[in-house]
Amino acid sequence: MPELDLAADAVTLTEQLVNIESVSHHEQVIADAVEAALTPLAHLEVTRHGHTIVARTNLGRDDRVVIAGHIDTVPLNDNLPARRDEELLHGLGSCDMKGGVAVALKLAADLTQPNRDITFIFYDAEEVEAEHNGLFKLSRSAPELMQADFAILMEPSNAVVEAGCQGTMRVDVRTTGERAHSARSWMGVNAIHAAAPILAKLAEFEPRRPVIDGLEYHEGLNAVFIDGGVAGNVLPDECVVQVNYRFAPDRSGEEAEKFLRDFFDGYDITVTDLAPGALPGLSVPAAAAFLEAVGGEANPKFGWTDVSRFSELGVPAVNFGPGDPLLAHKQEEHVPFAHIERCEEQLRIWLGES
Amino acid sequence: MPELDLAADAVTLTEQLVNIESVSHHEQVIADAVEAALTPLAHLEVTRHGHTIVARTNLGRDDRVVIAGHIDTVPLNDNLPARRDEELLHGLGSCDMKGGVAVALKLAADLTQPNRDITFIFYDAEEVEAEHNGLFKLSRSAPELMQADFAILMEPSNAVVEAGCQGTMRVDVRTTGERAHSARSWMGVNAIHAAAPILAKLAEFEPRRPVIDGLEYHEGLNAVFIDGGVAGNVLPDECVVQVNYRFAPDRSGEEAEKFLRDFFDGYDITVTDLAPGALPGLSVPAAAAFLEAVGGEANPKFGWTDVSRFSELGVPAVNFGPGDPLLAHKQEEHVPFAHIERCEEQLRIWLGES
Repeated sequence: MPELDLAADAVTLTEQLVNIESVSHHEQVIADAVEAALTPLAHLEVTRHGHTIVARTNLGRDDRVVIAGHIDTVPLNDNLPARRDEELLHGLGSCDMKGGVAVALKLAADLTQPNRDITFIFYDAEEVEAEHNGLFKLSRSAPELMQADFAILMEPSNAVVEAGCQGTMRVDVRTTGERAHSARSWMGVNAIHAAAPILAKLAEFEPRRPVIDGLEYHEGLNAVFIDGGVAGNVLPDECVVQVNYRFAPDRSGEEAEKFLRDFFDGYDITVTDLAPGALPGLSVPAAAAFLEAVGGEANPKFGWTDVSRFSELGVPAVNFGPGDPLLAHKQEEHVPFAHIERCEEQLRIWLGES
Repeated sequence: MPELDLAADAVTLTEQLVNIESVSHHEQVIADAVEAALTPLAHLEVTRHGHTIVARTNLGRDDRVVIAGHIDTVPLNDNLPARRDEELLHGLGSCDMKGGVAVALKLAADLTQPNRDITFIFYDAEEVEAEHNGLFKLSRSAPELMQADFAILMEPSNAVVEAGCQGTMRVDVRTTGERAHSARSWMGVNAIHAAAPILAKLAEFEPRRPVIDGLEYHEGLNAVFIDGGVAGNVLPDECVVQVNYRFAPDRSGEEAEKFLRDFFDGYDITVTDLAPGALPGLSVPAAAAFLEAVGGEANPKFGWTDVSRFSELGVPAVNFGPGDPLLAHKQEEHVPFAHIERCEEQLRIWLGES
């Protein structure tokens, strides 16, 4: 079994984590390694839930913070093992998000007397369908373990706070027609042609850019798939445009659906997927204090992240981790040493280590 | 081996043919049966070319006519065996085109002294890619067997002459964009949205309806497939619209391509398929005489048929067979007894049987 050396520096620990292959649904080995590294630490209460490891201090502090990160990665893309150059660690998961996991593991090992209680959560299956997500499953099986005054999700965010997250909804917009032989096309109705106004509306869409807690979000409404056709000599009787709506967190899931139904008024639409966003919550004292402690800079999070699972439980949460989110899921993903070091240092200070 | 009874009436013979399953690429049994039925007839010279059977009279007449039909069908669709009601024969291939094949077989058996020489051609693989088509292969391996003053293709045409055929061309019209995460869609360019004007142009297209030899053709320009998309959270960087152009026979393949390149000016288009049409040729004396003999009524043929293979060899040709072409390839295809009887009777008269 591969071993994690929690006495090593956080960059070295990131490298060790990257070199334990852990594509979603194959997290047994990395979860075993994390569990084995944390269990001997007397100041932590460690429990395991599938391949999700929870480690808690129980010091009776007034406040509790969750620090969470997922241990799985997207599939291999000829980008293992890890490789270092002078400033960067390269390799699958280096950015998304083993740099953040390494920082959390370092803090878990070293902070025996933090100024607030900490719940570390290392969870599986974030990169696949929500039903498999370890944090989602924990929120259903043991939500009390996720309760806290504040939560930090160590998703890549360039080592500054990215607050809230946008919601995401998918709808199928369907046109129908009537089949006919294409040599006698006036006998039928072409459903692909009927999709022209749908695509034109999407092309002309002007996204909302609402400012919330001083952060400018940026919506998006995009066809992500289109499919229609029966045979090369047949007028198609159906065309389906799959649309992905990314909506700012001032809009609920219900409001997002109402917007889409109005936008596509007259068309047959079916909601296939919905994950509401999370408000940045920077006006909540715990979040404001954290933001100030780590330098005061905050950006909006455009992508959907598990911060919304904490929001759902009433726990303010932000993204704060090493790595550029634009590199997530890319073959060339990497993480700057400086990001890892900055996140570790800022969190150590905030958690009271002099 | 199933036997064909050429002494039976043409409707019964159609029923026998329908009950010999002969989906394209599986014509061995029906070709064997046709060959076995024709070979004993002393007035015919029978040759076989793969699963294509050619049977010729050699009476030294001034004129020669080809009477041709394909022996394959589209795939089964729970529509075998044949079933009769009072006026119709139902079942796979009854309309397209075993009724016509039965008429040709009856004439081949009975007309020992026709007023012109006849070449009967029963060929395979008409319902699949052109490279497999038995008539196409014969036109390459033994074009002399297709030479004649006139040709009759017994494709379903409601037992009246359908003249010429429209051409067909397929092009892929491709849009490109730039991938980006759909949560940050302003970083990319959506190729599906870029297809909106293509579909709008298709929806607005006004088809030409040129009149040729007194027949009004009717063009069509249709998207038959559309496909785009990478993943549910990615802006697509490519979208392909497959367009089928059915063009009147006053336009050559080159002219059809030029029209499409002008129509889709500015877009990336690739020609994937082309089969030129055939002019009706009703002003050619042999065709005009045939038309007059069978009642003078002619309609334009909208679909592409193998008449264009005869046109290509300089042989005037028309479609003339039992069955409604709108029923071809439908589960419920059927053929009226009256169509079969009318075609047989008209051809017998024209070929000099009193």
